[in-house]
This record gives sequence, C-alpha cells and structure tokens, in this order.
Amino acid sequence: MLKLYGFSVSNYYNMVKLALLEKGLPFEEVPFYAGNSPEALAISPRGKVPVLGVEQGFINETAVILEYIEQSQAGTPLLPSDPFERAQVLAMAKEIELYIELPARACYPQAFFGMQVPDAIKDKTKAELLLGFASLGRHGKFAPYVAGEHLSLADLYFLYSVPLACAVGQKLFDIDLLADMPGAKALLERLEQNPNVKRIAADKEAAMPAFMAMVASKK
Amino acid sequence: MLKLYGFSVSNYYNMVKLALLEKGLPFEEVPFYAGNSPEALAISPRGKVPVLGVEQGFINETAVILEYIEQSQAGTPLLPSDPFERAQVLAMAKEIELYIELPARACYPQAFFGMQVPDAIKDKTKAELLLGFASLGRHGKFAPYVAGEHLSLADLYFLYSVPLACAVGQKLFDIDLLADMPGAKALLERLEQNPNVKRIAADKEAAMPAFMAMVASKK
Repeated sequence: MLKLYGFSVSNYYNMVKLALLEKGLPFEEVPFYAGNSPEALAISPRGKVPVLGVEQGFINETAVILEYIEQSQAGTPLLPSDPFERAQVLAMAKEIELYIELPARACYPQAFFGMQVPDAIKDKTKAELLLGFASLGRHGKFAPYVAGEHLSLADLYFLYSVPLACAVGQKLFDIDLLADMPGAKALLERLEQNPNVKRIAADKEAAMPAFMAMVASKK
Repeated sequence: MLKLYGFSVSNYYNMVKLALLEKGLPFEEVPFYAGNSPEALAISPRGKVPVLGVEQGFINETAVILEYIEQSQAGTPLLPSDPFERAQVLAMAKEIELYIELPARACYPQAFFGMQVPDAIKDKTKAELLLGFASLGRHGKFAPYVAGEHLSLADLYFLYSVPLACAVGQKLFDIDLLADMPGAKALLERLEQNPNVKRIAADKEAAMPAFMAMVASKK
C-alpha cells in the first residue's frame, strides 16, 4: 500500500493527501517531521515533507509525487490525457508554486509563528506576490476550477497555497490579494465544501497544537 | 515546427534548447525577452522565458516544457520509462531547481550585474545553498551522470544551474560549493565537451553584449 510520510499541518502534505483521497486510493499515513537527522535524510535528501513510500523506495517532491500517482495508479484523473492540455494544467500548478507559494513561504515565520522577517525579504515577497496573483488572474480559468471544468492538480496547489499567501498579504501588507478575483474566491468556498477537504482540515486542526509546541521548542 | 521563445543568455532557455538538440528535434528560435508588456504577457502569464510555441498555443515553465517534449516528441529519451525511476530523475531535477537555482538566483543581481543585494537575502541564500548542495551530494549519483548511466533532465538542471550557483558561492561567500563533490566537478567537465553544449555556450557568448546593454539600460 502507498505510504504518505509527513504531517497534517504541512500544506504540501495535504496536496498529496487530497489527491489520494480524490482518486479513491488506499494509503497509510506515516508521521514524519523530516529535518536533518541521518534517519530523516535517508528518506528525504533535503529533509522535506511529504515523501511517498512505494515498494521500490521513496519518492520526494510534491509535484513529482503527484505526477507519479497520476501515471502509475488508478482512480479519477487529475490531469487531462492530451499532452498540450496536460501541460497547461501543470504550468498553472507550477506558477502557483513558484510565484505564490514560494514568495509567501519566505514570510510564514512572521505571519504564522510569531517571528520577525527582515524588511528586505518582506519587500521582495510583496513585490513577487503582486506579480504572482496578477499572473494567476490572467492564466486561471475559474470555470469553476482553476484550469477549467474539472478538478485538477492545479486546484490542489490553489487550495493549499493561495489562502496561506492571502494570509501573508493581509497580515503583513494589509492587502486583499484576491480583491479583483471573485472567481477565485468562489472556487475556494466551493473547494472548502468538499468532504475530503473537510476531513483534511479537521486532521490539520487536530495536529496543530503538537506542531505549535514543536515550533515553540525550537525557537 | 516547435518554436522556442526566449534568449540565449537565459539558463532556463538553454536547458530546453539542449533537450531539443540532444533529442535531435527540429525547432526555431524566436527572440523573446518577456517582461510585463501586454504582448509578452499574452505569451507568458508571468512574463518569463522560455516558452514553447506549438500548434495549439504556448507552453510555459521549463519543467513543464521539458516533460511535454518528452511525452509528445520523438528522439533520445531524457527520462526513464519506469514510473519510479522517472520520479527519481524528476525529483533530482526539482531539488536542483528549488534548493540550488532559486536561492542562487536571489543573488544573481550582485554576482553578475553589479547591483547590491541586501544582507538578509544574502544570508538566506548562503544557508539554503549549503543545504541544497549537501542534498545534491547525498542524492546525486554522478555515475557518470547526475541520475545514473544516462543523460537525463536532471543533467540539464545540473549543467545550467550549478555553475551559476557556484559563481554566487565563490563571489559572494568565498566558498567552493563543489569542494567535496569530485564526481560533480568531473561531470561538469564532461558535459562541457558535449558538442551541443559547446554550441549553446557560443550562442550565449554572442548574445551577451546585447543582453548586458539591456540590463544596464534598465538600472
């Protein structure tokens, strides 16, 4: 059976978990906080989550795991079969990761964990988030899903990266990054009603106290 | 025919160009500097290069373009056919991008363009590069190629990201990031003898003066 290594507070972990649930695949969750111990690095070379455990070994990197599942497992497709259409969905997912998730992530310590982020990094994040959301507005279809009629891998990135980036925008810069994107706001509301998404949110809430205690112990 | 939009100084552009040359595919190079004009954004939603032009439209994001070419075109494969092995190569490529290329890129303005990067960003880059190269050392096979016996997509990232990151390490931090990785150094030397790599390097050199003049005009 597929093994999903990671923890329920990680948004990347939850992208893969939602893919597995939406595809109706059986899997086992293995608690794994990564880090730089030799044991963790034997599972994940850069000490990151999630990791997928399969018969032959470990697969790292969310985007790679998602495509592996898509290519090798049964269940509802989350990518179109036509190569051009498939590329459009993957590009949308990648744009959300590179231009929204990653700049926002540089400010997570201040937005969510009570730490201070240097101004130079906040300035860079703000400039990049404005460009990243403008790009999402141009490229996203929201009809009703990010890449069109069907739930796809792009929606996983959208659901688990965009609200965190919006929280960074609100808390650090007092900006509503989705102000001009009613279609995106409507899609978030729709996705949050999905039973698998609700289950993942409940698992996250349950795991949060232990996670915050761990973060506090490392400060 | 496939159209490759971009410019010969871009390392991401050169990854795709090398893939096309190694696969022996015919393609046309279309000069495109991206940016934020409406015309550019109609081709690339975030104003980036490279872009692949195909019959149905434009494909963005290097990783997506490389996989599209692999999936839809003929020529020497740059990915294994087994899904697990394929995932290992893609993870290696992604690790080079996320943990080496992107942190280094934050310091390109100082390393290559005579601008100043704030200390907070340099500190972040240095810490991330040390972890990223340690990860490459753990996960890379260099036997002789990054992911094993055959040239793969991981080598494209390696060839066009690692030397730039090493230049950042040397110029800004006085560190030889490949000091403990003789296999990686040997692979760079081997790749630099490849005739297609030599051609791309010559094209880059020829394009550099016009590019530097453009950068200077925007300072």
